[in-house]
Amino acid sequence: MIKASILGATGYVGAELVRLLYSHPNVEIAHLVSASNAGKPLSSVYPSLTGLDLPELISLNIDAVCANSDVLFVSLPHGASKDVIPALYATGKKIIDMSGDFRYDDPAVYTKWYGVDHDSPELLKKAVYGMPELHREAIKSAQLIGNPGCYTTCSILALAPLLKAGAVSTQNIIIDAKSGSTGAGRNPSQAMHFCEVDSSVKAYNIAKHRHTSEIEQELSKIANAEIVLSFTPHLLPIKRGILSTSYANLTAKASESELLTLFKDFYADEPFVTVFDSGKLPEIKHVVGSNRLAIGLAVDARLNRVVVVSCIDNLIKGAAGQAVQNLNILFGLDEKAGLDSPAWYL
Amino acid sequence: MIKASILGATGYVGAELVRLLYSHPNVEIAHLVSASNAGKPLSSVYPSLTGLDLPELISLNIDAVCANSDVLFVSLPHGASKDVIPALYATGKKIIDMSGDFRYDDPAVYTKWYGVDHDSPELLKKAVYGMPELHREAIKSAQLIGNPGCYTTCSILALAPLLKAGAVSTQNIIIDAKSGSTGAGRNPSQAMHFCEVDSSVKAYNIAKHRHTSEIEQELSKIANAEIVLSFTPHLLPIKRGILSTSYANLTAKASESELLTLFKDFYADEPFVTVFDSGKLPEIKHVVGSNRLAIGLAVDARLNRVVVVSCIDNLIKGAAGQAVQNLNILFGLDEKAGLDSPAWYL
Amino acid sequence: MIKASILGATGYVGAELVRLLYSHPNVEIAHLVSASNAGKPLSSVYPSLTGLDLPELISLNIDAVCANSDVLFVSLPHGASKDVIPALYATGKKIIDMSGDFRYDDPAVYTKWYGVDHDSPELLKKAVYGMPELHREAIKSAQLIGNPGCYTTCSILALAPLLKAGAVSTQNIIIDAKSGSTGAGRNPSQAMHFCEVDSSVKAYNIAKHRHTSEIEQELSKIANAEIVLSFTPHLLPIKRGILSTSYANLTAKASESELLTLFKDFYADEPFVTVFDSGKLPEIKHVVGSNRLAIGLAVDARLNRVVVVSCIDNLIKGAAGQAVQNLNILFGLDEKAGLDSPAWYL
Amino acid sequence: MIKASILGATGYVGAELVRLLYSHPNVEIAHLVSASNAGKPLSSVYPSLTGLDLPELISLNIDAVCANSDVLFVSLPHGASKDVIPALYATGKKIIDMSGDFRYDDPAVYTKWYGVDHDSPELLKKAVYGMPELHREAIKSAQLIGNPGCYTTCSILALAPLLKAGAVSTQNIIIDAKSGSTGAGRNPSQAMHFCEVDSSVKAYNIAKHRHTSEIEQELSKIANAEIVLSFTPHLLPIKRGILSTSYANLTAKASESELLTLFKDFYADEPFVTVFDSGKLPEIKHVVGSNRLAIGLAVDARLNRVVVVSCIDNLIKGAAGQAVQNLNILFGLDEKAGLDSPAWYL
Repeated sequence: MIKASILGATGYVGAELVRLLYSHPNVEIAHLVSASNAGKPLSSVYPSLTGLDLPELISLNIDAVCANSDVLFVSLPHGASKDVIPALYATGKKIIDMSGDFRYDDPAVYTKWYGVDHDSPELLKKAVYGMPELHREAIKSAQLIGNPGCYTTCSILALAPLLKAGAVSTQNIIIDAKSGSTGAGRNPSQAMHFCEVDSSVKAYNIAKHRHTSEIEQELSKIANAEIVLSFTPHLLPIKRGILSTSYANLTAKASESELLTLFKDFYADEPFVTVFDSGKLPEIKHVVGSNRLAIGLAVDARLNRVVVVSCIDNLIKGAAGQAVQNLNILFGLDEKAGLDSPAWYL
Repeated sequence: MIKASILGATGYVGAELVRLLYSHPNVEIAHLVSASNAGKPLSSVYPSLTGLDLPELISLNIDAVCANSDVLFVSLPHGASKDVIPALYATGKKIIDMSGDFRYDDPAVYTKWYGVDHDSPELLKKAVYGMPELHREAIKSAQLIGNPGCYTTCSILALAPLLKAGAVSTQNIIIDAKSGSTGAGRNPSQAMHFCEVDSSVKAYNIAKHRHTSEIEQELSKIANAEIVLSFTPHLLPIKRGILSTSYANLTAKASESELLTLFKDFYADEPFVTVFDSGKLPEIKHVVGSNRLAIGLAVDARLNRVVVVSCIDNLIKGAAGQAVQNLNILFGLDEKAGLDSPAWYL
Repeated sequence: MIKASILGATGYVGAELVRLLYSHPNVEIAHLVSASNAGKPLSSVYPSLTGLDLPELISLNIDAVCANSDVLFVSLPHGASKDVIPALYATGKKIIDMSGDFRYDDPAVYTKWYGVDHDSPELLKKAVYGMPELHREAIKSAQLIGNPGCYTTCSILALAPLLKAGAVSTQNIIIDAKSGSTGAGRNPSQAMHFCEVDSSVKAYNIAKHRHTSEIEQELSKIANAEIVLSFTPHLLPIKRGILSTSYANLTAKASESELLTLFKDFYADEPFVTVFDSGKLPEIKHVVGSNRLAIGLAVDARLNRVVVVSCIDNLIKGAAGQAVQNLNILFGLDEKAGLDSPAWYL
Repeated sequence: MIKASILGATGYVGAELVRLLYSHPNVEIAHLVSASNAGKPLSSVYPSLTGLDLPELISLNIDAVCANSDVLFVSLPHGASKDVIPALYATGKKIIDMSGDFRYDDPAVYTKWYGVDHDSPELLKKAVYGMPELHREAIKSAQLIGNPGCYTTCSILALAPLLKAGAVSTQNIIIDAKSGSTGAGRNPSQAMHFCEVDSSVKAYNIAKHRHTSEIEQELSKIANAEIVLSFTPHLLPIKRGILSTSYANLTAKASESELLTLFKDFYADEPFVTVFDSGKLPEIKHVVGSNRLAIGLAVDARLNRVVVVSCIDNLIKGAAGQAVQNLNILFGLDEKAGLDSPAWYL
């Protein structure tokens, strides 16, 4: 059994990691670290876990935690990850970081979008961007994984096959994304008060959301051209799920079937990507509860433009599930181990 | 008192008309027509109306209804409106049609998007598109109003000032719109079952939603150039409200303040349009319950692109409220009469 | 025009008072007081009010505010009301207090349920419990109104006719109440985070919710016997509305029709109470948006027990609307002035 | 591998059975029967299942289906189950019926509450009521299981320990239950339209819901006394989950701790029942997604009354999960096989 510990176990992503790892056939949860709730059981925060055999929440003692762990999930806010990971890294243990701190090829991009310098640029260089569909080989031998953002997973994979094939222009790409509220995390705030979120929708951080930079980094590499695009996040009055609607101009006439073939080929061996048939579009309820990314598309022949619709569960394929998928790859397990549940639909 | 009758009073738009007209200081509800529920009180369908002084639902007798009405709201499905309106028109009474049947300048456009011929092209020619912000003068003297669609109201008014000023290109306009479920009407269906809609979001009718044609018609006139654009509707798990996110490329560099000034000037005299200050964006909860359209925007300087966010209550400014606004104009009343309620927020 | 000022204008009840008073034909909003947001417009907190002609938020200066007001709505937390009201009272102005501080006949009951002494017992004695259906005459000549709680309004009026008539036993009364989340107020907290409330329901404060004491006080007076009962509140994943399900054992056999007649007689002259016909039960959507209380019932003949279902909008008939109703009574206005809107249903 | 087939695979309970059985380590899905969708893949109805290795939907051929199945889940409406089960039974295969048709000890009770005669009273006699916590031994050797209703599971198990111990009176028991909308099934109707359910709550079938009879049957046996009680179901604007609030008068003074001990002893060996500690109450989000029943309670010392709060996921412990638990018992598997997922919480 692989021994996994979680730093930041009481956040929504931390709790989702616990939920998934608890049912993982090859993993045992070693330590649950929580600065704010050390000494309590995790079920005091998540009564849904009452009665499960889980370790008590503890404060972080890096040596003790690492000595007893094969892999560390760091589910801390950006900045806090960056501060603690060098010491973890020095122990030689594998690390999967859920924050934005180790997702960038270039520290200057991090600084530009996060507003602070990256004080471990050498570690950043060693980190691998943990998107298996694009970087599976590099993940296999990595020690430190920068687990991708939720919006970015849903957006990058919706456009990668088109850009790889040169089927769409690198200009005028627009990604209009809608996310459930768990994406904003567990900390209460006026903006996340039930009565402020329920029965409403809002756009936010237009032209400045940090995930834009991740999307541009990865898509630029795939397209082998610098891509600057519009990314607009919206907050939905639901808990889980992201739906991205991505617009791109075709470089040549193409039918839906032709484009879908391109997607199906690109993702032919992927265990968690479903490409819908022509005429069918994924909805959030088709993926929530699973590690699945579902993709569908329509062609607007009048405009020679493709509209790609992609959906994920932001807490699973957009966070904890993808992290477990990375764990599976890191340790040579079946990539679907612990991640094979169908979506809930209801 | 102006005597108003409603054909199709038991649909969601019909019921919203009743709710608004009941509180209108200058209007009296004369007849409520419903093919399916004639002989019953409207409160048998909407128990929220129990105890209100409302006429009983009746079958349609055109002569009787028109004889006792100054204005007719036709809240029937498209096609059904087209069939009944010629006879209503012949009585000389004013008509506000809620369907898509009388919104087009060119019957060929109607045929293309609705899939049937328009058998009253001469009436279509006499109809005025009932969007007060663009056609107030024509509305004043019209007998037949084609009340605009919900998506179209929210979308057209988000782009009109920019196109009028030539501030954005007519190419690469993308409207990504999200609507509450009342937009789909009252008839039950598998797709509108609570358990299918709740906690999910979907895109639908990509590149073929009928409202696209209305938006293109009106924006083309404003821009004085043919506009073909992407319009993507999404279904939200909420009852009321539309949020449109519209993307357009600026023809020249412009700041948020400059563009907002352009909007504020354009809508300076409009009683129901609110332009938000720089840095603030409208949310659905800011308009639900009111006849208000709220607009905000952000400029993506990296791309020289503007992103406009606009919100309405689809049942009010997107349907019944705009129809009452048209009534107010048709009869020379204060345009805000019966429509002055602030949004509910909660 | 009656000049009304609101202390605590940025809370949910305060904002609902603003919304209702803004449309009231006989009232003008004089001052909006907010400790936390003085100097800002109310629209900075509620952008839904952008563009409305409202006074800026100010700090409390009792003399200045009272000098320019005919009536003061005190929408502060309990305890805070008690502290400020003596000084307001001394100005001779009419006061409608939204907290629990002035709802009790006996200060000892207040102390028992609120855990603090009441330091203005003489004012408490002068206050009138502002439930028009039970105390209209006393309200007319009061200077200080203790506006009833939301749960209490929905519960007391569901049982009053039965107890008044001796139709049910005073033993074994159980009230199982379900409330929308606005009842918990605007302050953010972990428990009110969207993701904690959405798609879930919980019971809370069983056998110790403060509203129990209000319900028992009023029902005991009506029954002319001491009533101790079970009251269980539940939190619903919706914004507005309360549904109370009340159980009582009949003292003699009675049909639904007989009991409904009893209710209809009791509420015959009430402008805001709707008693549903046999076989029909009110739902939350039948009252939300209105100042209406809707009541229906069923008799369980096997048990000789009646089950009464009652619904209100907790922010309107359960708070701000009832306060406006009290204002109307205090100033001799039409009791329905400003409160005549039908429920929203959608 | 045990071969399981599902009759009625496209309903919500059928689909949930597929979801659970798909991940069950000892079960293989043999046939999926659907009258309405034969010839299509199940993913045409539930796109969330796209890409899963599942048999195509077929029409019912009893011999063919039974020949290739070890166990049959009959997920048909009541009445339809009764019609098909005798022929299934004759094949000797084990049957788990999800309808109300085989839950009763006495056919007269079925007739009274379902309004039709039971035409297989001899089979009814052989059927075992599939509530493992009460009838595990009988289930082990049964051929035909009447799988309990959702409300009934949540209600019976909330009161069984108290009645067994004689701790509460058999008089004046009241169960006020609130259910998510999946309990109403997949068929669309006006009442289940999203816009009719969302943001509202209603009571329905007061004093006449069929599950009342199941609850009374089982609790009477446990109490060894005839129990007639009040059961009131409510529809919640959520998809999954039931919360029952049960009221009973204590026969002697008892503290929360004493009563909780009684519950913990009663359920000491139960794999799916969680009894919360004093001061903690279960919420719907604590169980949704799991086969768990969570119970908490409060004592109202003023009234010597206990209030028990119990929660389940209506589709899992209230239907498909309990059926899988029954399968596990029927075939001597680990009772938790395929059912060990923690609740989703988010």
